[in-house]
Amino acid sequence: MALVVQKYGGSSLEDAERIKRVAERIVRARKEGHDVVVVASAMGDTTDDLIELAEQVSPSPPPREMDMLLTSGERISNALLAMAIHALGVEARSFTGSQAGMITTSKHGDARIVEVNPGRLKSALSEGAIVLVAGFQGMSGDSREITTLGRGGSDTTAVALAAALRADVCEIYTDVDGVFSADPRIVRDAAPLDTVCYEEMLELAACGAKVLHLRAVEYARRYGVPLRVRSSYNDKLGTLITGSLEDIPLEQAILTGVAHDRSEGKVTVTGVPDTPGHAARIFRAVADAEINIDMVLQNISHAANRRTDITFTLPRSDGPTAVAALEKAKAQIGFEEVFYDENVGKVSLVGAGMRSHPGVTATFCESLSRAGINIETMNTSEIRISVLCREDQLDTAVRALHEAFELGGEEEAVVHAGSGR
Amino acid sequence: MALVVQKYGGSSLEDAERIKRVAERIVRARKEGHDVVVVASAMGDTTDDLIELAEQVSPSPPPREMDMLLTSGERISNALLAMAIHALGVEARSFTGSQAGMITTSKHGDARIVEVNPGRLKSALSEGAIVLVAGFQGMSGDSREITTLGRGGSDTTAVALAAALRADVCEIYTDVDGVFSADPRIVRDAAPLDTVCYEEMLELAACGAKVLHLRAVEYARRYGVPLRVRSSYNDKLGTLITGSLEDIPLEQAILTGVAHDRSEGKVTVTGVPDTPGHAARIFRAVADAEINIDMVLQNISHAANRRTDITFTLPRSDGPTAVAALEKAKAQIGFEEVFYDENVGKVSLVGAGMRSHPGVTATFCESLSRAGINIETMNTSEIRISVLCREDQLDTAVRALHEAFELGGEEEAVVHAGSGR
Repeated sequence: MALVVQKYGGSSLEDAERIKRVAERIVRARKEGHDVVVVASAMGDTTDDLIELAEQVSPSPPPREMDMLLTSGERISNALLAMAIHALGVEARSFTGSQAGMITTSKHGDARIVEVNPGRLKSALSEGAIVLVAGFQGMSGDSREITTLGRGGSDTTAVALAAALRADVCEIYTDVDGVFSADPRIVRDAAPLDTVCYEEMLELAACGAKVLHLRAVEYARRYGVPLRVRSSYNDKLGTLITGSLEDIPLEQAILTGVAHDRSEGKVTVTGVPDTPGHAARIFRAVADAEINIDMVLQNISHAANRRTDITFTLPRSDGPTAVAALEKAKAQIGFEEVFYDENVGKVSLVGAGMRSHPGVTATFCESLSRAGINIETMNTSEIRISVLCREDQLDTAVRALHEAFELGGEEEAVVHAGSGR
Repeated sequence: MALVVQKYGGSSLEDAERIKRVAERIVRARKEGHDVVVVASAMGDTTDDLIELAEQVSPSPPPREMDMLLTSGERISNALLAMAIHALGVEARSFTGSQAGMITTSKHGDARIVEVNPGRLKSALSEGAIVLVAGFQGMSGDSREITTLGRGGSDTTAVALAAALRADVCEIYTDVDGVFSADPRIVRDAAPLDTVCYEEMLELAACGAKVLHLRAVEYARRYGVPLRVRSSYNDKLGTLITGSLEDIPLEQAILTGVAHDRSEGKVTVTGVPDTPGHAARIFRAVADAEINIDMVLQNISHAANRRTDITFTLPRSDGPTAVAALEKAKAQIGFEEVFYDENVGKVSLVGAGMRSHPGVTATFCESLSRAGINIETMNTSEIRISVLCREDQLDTAVRALHEAFELGGEEEAVVHAGSGR
């Protein structure tokens, strides 16, 4: 008998029928003899509907009230799921984030989990009940206010509960069959992956793979929680995310997959004096505008005037703000010009095998070149190569790399529509 | 500067526009210098929609989960109202029932308030914020589970908070202009009442006046909270409910109004042995089926066989259950027959003046008789006369009594549609 945490996304719970289907799956795990803890997101479009209502009553709703509002969505789905399980003859109890002991920081809309005190959940489990916990929410430790965890919050709730309860596995149910060697909507023979280590999954998530949120994977790695990503529509086993990079023998390490991202823009600042402190001033100006940057590239300086160009990427939605912040600080920083380019795409190859297979970078560049794709910016880590190219060439780039590194499976992947929070 | 508790029903909050309108009213009270505590019901049809969802996933949803589900409705409306107030430049904070310290018994779906610990509300008020509390909900003292208060729960929340905070007045905002001398939809010249004492309001509410719930009025009387019922659509002062019957000088006491009720059915048990214990057995059989009865009438016994007839009224929805329970216990109780009649209506005249004006009963009966209405059953209290008649004669009866006792005003009453929880 194991303790299993299961997380279901909003698209798996979009109406009463889907809720009943999920209830059956949960009851099946219980009848196999496991203790089951479930984390459910809000039903289908509930969160978007609530946000729309908020915008109708206020141009800038206070974050505290936004959290009060949005947390009701998970409360509704979890209560309904408990009822549906009950209707199948099995005891089930739903708990809010604060009842479940999810203690967070106090930053509304983007709180972090500080501590989990699952006393009430343990009592309910020991009484034989299936436990349901509203995802995405908690209570701040100092002010006892209701908070939300921000993007990917329900995944993080599930992983944090699995860690606190020392669960055997945390299953993330979604509308795809697992983690793939590339996006099956782009690459027809993209292969489902059986196992991926935490570091590889972190790189994939950071490079645009949407199946899991970075924070949830980071949390799982820190506490050693095995994660399984699988479909709520079938019984395939999906992908197990576990183990550390260091534990993979070099000779067994392979290349894992190709990720892509079309959510970033590129800022280039030219003619920056190549003396200490100027680059720092650029990044300080951007940070002061509360913008996170991703890739950074600094070219060598032009020998003649000892000036250099600095390029970085950032979320497209922050592009105009970053440019305005830089223009404002132009005189103080002392650069020549700032350019902004939205029409870029990022493609990344990830895999532990990169450490032991020489020539990966060469093959990478050759395959893109053969496909007629110009590399604009390159950035690497121990197990990842990322490049920027034109956005309209991104799909071609993904397919070229996937083929060059022979990542494909034998069957064609099945694609479902939509994705939850 | 006063402390005012304001309660808004669901029809006053049915969409973003109405919420903004209510926010303006709340801010106006704040700008007049008052501390303001607001209790809001769920928006429009939210509660009905949630109940429908529950029915789709389960034939008999567990009451605990039903409470988890339904309490989200008030949470949504209160958070939205806080945002709308904020958008007008005034600080506002919404609280759930448990955050507001509403401690209740543990009976899900029909909990009673045991204690109110408004510490967090007082802090927020002292910081100058408008405080919003989700109505209809609390937390059980022993198990710390989320509970709901049942019908009229939001009114009761408002009155309980007003008592705990020693508010100067508890205003109940609704879609009618106040308490009327009769239902304006039946009596065209029904007059709005300026003041009504607690006992009169209790009798009116118990006899079918829907503007306030019995429990809320009982709570207000017990703690001496002045209640004002008024419209959220205009600035009329509405009706103040305050003061005790004993405080009204007999010479000033008047007749207050006519109430009616078409929600009851009539059970008649014939041939009951007129010896001690037989009536008790009848009422025990009904009570064991968890049915509340209203009026009871026992005729004198037929001298010949020392048997009597017992008649009582009860909610129509409980009629068939009561009859079945009695039939089952027929041999044990020893009656002859049980009859059930759904087509009855109850009309009541209420007023402190009844104590000092002889001849009220006579005028009452004469006016009904002149209108061609047969009185089937009569029941009285110190300040009330109620009779049952045929249901299709009920409107005629209400108009006849209203006219006979000259309760009408000079203007015609304005009628709005719909009513909240």
